[in-house]
Amino acid sequence: AAATWACLCGLAVEGWEFGRSDPRKVVFAAKMGLALTIISLLIFLRVTFHDLSKHSVWAILTVVVVFEFSIGATLSKGLNRGLGTLLSGGLALGVAEIATLTGDWEEVLVIISIFVVGFFASFIKLYPTMQPYEYGFRVFLLTFCYIVVSGYRTRAFMETAVSRFILIALGAGIGLGVNICIYPIWAGEDLHNLVTKNFTGLAKSLEGCVNGYLQCVEYERVPSKILTYQAYDDPLYSGYRSAVQSTIQEDALLSFAIWEPPHGPYKMWNYPWKNYIRVSGALRHCAFMVMALHGCILSEIQAPPESRQIFSSELKRVGIEGAKVLRELGDLMKTMTKLNKPNFLFEVHEAAEVLQQKIDRKSYLLVNSESWEGAEFPDGTKGNLNRTNITEYENNCYTTRSYVEPPSTSSNIHSSVTSFTGSLPKMDSTLQRQMQWPARQSFNSEVMRNGEESRTYESASALSLATFSSLLIEFVARLQNLVEAFQELSEKANFEEPVDEPILE
Amino acid sequence: AAATWACLCGLAVEGWEFGRSDPRKVVFAAKMGLALTIISLLIFLRVTFHDLSKHSVWAILTVVVVFEFSIGATLSKGLNRGLGTLLSGGLALGVAEIATLTGDWEEVLVIISIFVVGFFASFIKLYPTMQPYEYGFRVFLLTFCYIVVSGYRTRAFMETAVSRFILIALGAGIGLGVNICIYPIWAGEDLHNLVTKNFTGLAKSLEGCVNGYLQCVEYERVPSKILTYQAYDDPLYSGYRSAVQSTIQEDALLSFAIWEPPHGPYKMWNYPWKNYIRVSGALRHCAFMVMALHGCILSEIQAPPESRQIFSSELKRVGIEGAKVLRELGDLMKTMTKLNKPNFLFEVHEAAEVLQQKIDRKSYLLVNSESWEGAEFPDGTKGNLNRTNITEYENNCYTTRSYVEPPSTSSNIHSSVTSFTGSLPKMDSTLQRQMQWPARQSFNSEVMRNGEESRTYESASALSLATFSSLLIEFVARLQNLVEAFQELSEKANFEEPVDEPILE
Repeated sequence: AAATWACLCGLAVEGWEFGRSDPRKVVFAAKMGLALTIISLLIFLRVTFHDLSKHSVWAILTVVVVFEFSIGATLSKGLNRGLGTLLSGGLALGVAEIATLTGDWEEVLVIISIFVVGFFASFIKLYPTMQPYEYGFRVFLLTFCYIVVSGYRTRAFMETAVSRFILIALGAGIGLGVNICIYPIWAGEDLHNLVTKNFTGLAKSLEGCVNGYLQCVEYERVPSKILTYQAYDDPLYSGYRSAVQSTIQEDALLSFAIWEPPHGPYKMWNYPWKNYIRVSGALRHCAFMVMALHGCILSEIQAPPESRQIFSSELKRVGIEGAKVLRELGDLMKTMTKLNKPNFLFEVHEAAEVLQQKIDRKSYLLVNSESWEGAEFPDGTKGNLNRTNITEYENNCYTTRSYVEPPSTSSNIHSSVTSFTGSLPKMDSTLQRQMQWPARQSFNSEVMRNGEESRTYESASALSLATFSSLLIEFVARLQNLVEAFQELSEKANFEEPVDEPILE
Repeated sequence: AAATWACLCGLAVEGWEFGRSDPRKVVFAAKMGLALTIISLLIFLRVTFHDLSKHSVWAILTVVVVFEFSIGATLSKGLNRGLGTLLSGGLALGVAEIATLTGDWEEVLVIISIFVVGFFASFIKLYPTMQPYEYGFRVFLLTFCYIVVSGYRTRAFMETAVSRFILIALGAGIGLGVNICIYPIWAGEDLHNLVTKNFTGLAKSLEGCVNGYLQCVEYERVPSKILTYQAYDDPLYSGYRSAVQSTIQEDALLSFAIWEPPHGPYKMWNYPWKNYIRVSGALRHCAFMVMALHGCILSEIQAPPESRQIFSSELKRVGIEGAKVLRELGDLMKTMTKLNKPNFLFEVHEAAEVLQQKIDRKSYLLVNSESWEGAEFPDGTKGNLNRTNITEYENNCYTTRSYVEPPSTSSNIHSSVTSFTGSLPKMDSTLQRQMQWPARQSFNSEVMRNGEESRTYESASALSLATFSSLLIEFVARLQNLVEAFQELSEKANFEEPVDEPILE
């Protein structure tokens, strides 16, 4: 008994927490209770015509079935139910009329008609474009069978059809009234919030990926949930995953939102909800790049920390600027303000440009210069610059353009060789730990000697940084597309002009 | 009239085509018609007790509502409906009993109980883990209201509750019987086929991406549907998109499949359907890399065709081997055969290794050697090898390991400069065409002169090839994870041992 009581208490606490986390759910449940109470009261008080009261269950049924979480869903279901009942009532009355005229063949005709209607209604509702009306077809079929069968028994076709329709209208009316008049929950608003939230989530994910990459974050063991793309509580992962995965929710919300009348900030008939989906799609297109960036962290082939350090400030700046763009766009979405900066992407593009130039100058760090070292230089090249000189050059590179930089002089080669060797033991342990890269025996050992193999890893590991950078640059390139989608939405949805001083800095 | 007729004919043809494309849908519709016919016949023939016949509509309603496309869905809905009715019937009888005892307060008590039950049923069904039982809660609520309200009117609580339950059981029984006995449609089989199909689609997509990249396929204008991740009829795109997007369908099918009894090739209780989802997730993890590969084709920063040509055979081989692995795994899934090759991934790993080695040796082609050319070589390096020698070396590289290769001798630099310059006009037009990369004025022209800017693009364009290759190698690395997921599935699901001679070559 004590255990049961503890269990009950636990459930109550959980329910309380659940309700507190989203009070709209509590409100919805209370509204449902209220609607049912009203309809029961009406039936108890016999305010409806006496004839109807024996069919009163239809009104209750309609309230239970039609009452959905959002207004759009309620309207769409109510309309489906209403139309289905009306059309099917007409058809059923026609069939019943014909059937009674045939006399002895009546039963046969009724049964055949049920089969035929059942067949076609079930077949047509499977047609892809009929998906939103699935419920309508179900109600159509149900009403048809009900009227024909119960009419056959009671001979009161017309009364059945009419009372059923009136009671459904009554139930739908009360359901809709309660749902819309008391604390309405709009699917459109949910859609708006969902898309806005994805901007912030993706910005966090992007920053997390760039910072994690620079801090050489590695997964001890990549969680198998990530490897099989399931929900997982990793801030880097969940941010872009929810942006990618929200397509299901968005489609559902869109299909409800288009039914909703103008409300709140969405004061417009034919509000361009579809453009929200487009913006979200463009965001997703960017999210795929963040996903690929995360892939660089997940990969067991990792760039040596030393070379990441060299590009650190540039990579970081692109990450910060990219996240800033996403956050600003997200804020504009939230406040429904137009974007009014002609060079909105200027800073992030400049950051990408600087990164690209740095890569340009330092590209010998991104490839395996070691293999070149094996090459014999016919005339024995010797470098005369050391790291200090290079750093000096960097500091001055925008002012003094007459710089000197050796691509593969031996001093450079040696420093990079050192860094590669330094990172080798770490890499080998990574390989053993994760075991994604083929185990040794799977290689043809006659073709490749051990030394070469590890050289191949080194080269791959250096290229990994190039990949990360170029994915980041591609992410920046994709932002333009996102901005365009946002501008299209802000035009169509008549977002407000921004006030003079920039609110979002 | 003629137009209407033509329209009707068009609809009929479309319906015919639709039915032919998936005959199961026709069968389903016919089964639905049959089940309704049977239940109507029973009611007409008054085989049920006379008392029940006035509630006969519940049997029809149950058939219409419970009859779903797949067996699993039908069973899950039927169970929800049955349990909901049973539990709620018990509760309603209890409440009614108490209410009648209170005398004058009866109505008040009934109304309060309706509100309370309505509130809790609606609240609990919103709890995430209750999602699969949503329909059960709806039925619970409906039954409760119905019994309490109609019982209040007729005073026949018990009769209402029992007859409702019997008729629902009758309807569910006929629905289930017809659905299972005649040409059953299993959700599990659909799940199996969906996952299998994704393997083939991804293999096609991979091959298409690699071949398209090598043939320098470019989009005149990237379709905005791809930029916003909507369905689009591009073979490269639709293959990986459906693998990525199928997660919704899979989850739905899984939730039905777990209800299905052993059948056909899935002769086991607790069949590991969840492992199908895991395999599909691992496949998706690979699909993200194919998506990133496609991103390289979509990008407006493109590697010059000349350098792609140099890596052509290696890239192609990895593409072919990767696609072969996917196809073989897909075939094994289809035939439900265990994987019995210890070195299944050997060939694709070898291909990746060869590609990596080639990159290793040729990495100076992947970075912008032009910027190095600006550097003054203190001692005036001069190369003494030309392309012919390199090719010769390549042909012999596995036999003679004492090769000589100059990293940045002037002959190499010049040839790469030519190829970059050759590709420049094309690149510029790409930039104008797609306008994703920032327009000129957005750059700080004081910092960067025009020459530098285009050099930056060249460097980016060369790196693009490095990115493509390293994404491809990462794709290969992820295959191991897919193979492991497959092996786990094949163990748990008891796939057949392969016959001695390898069927799939």
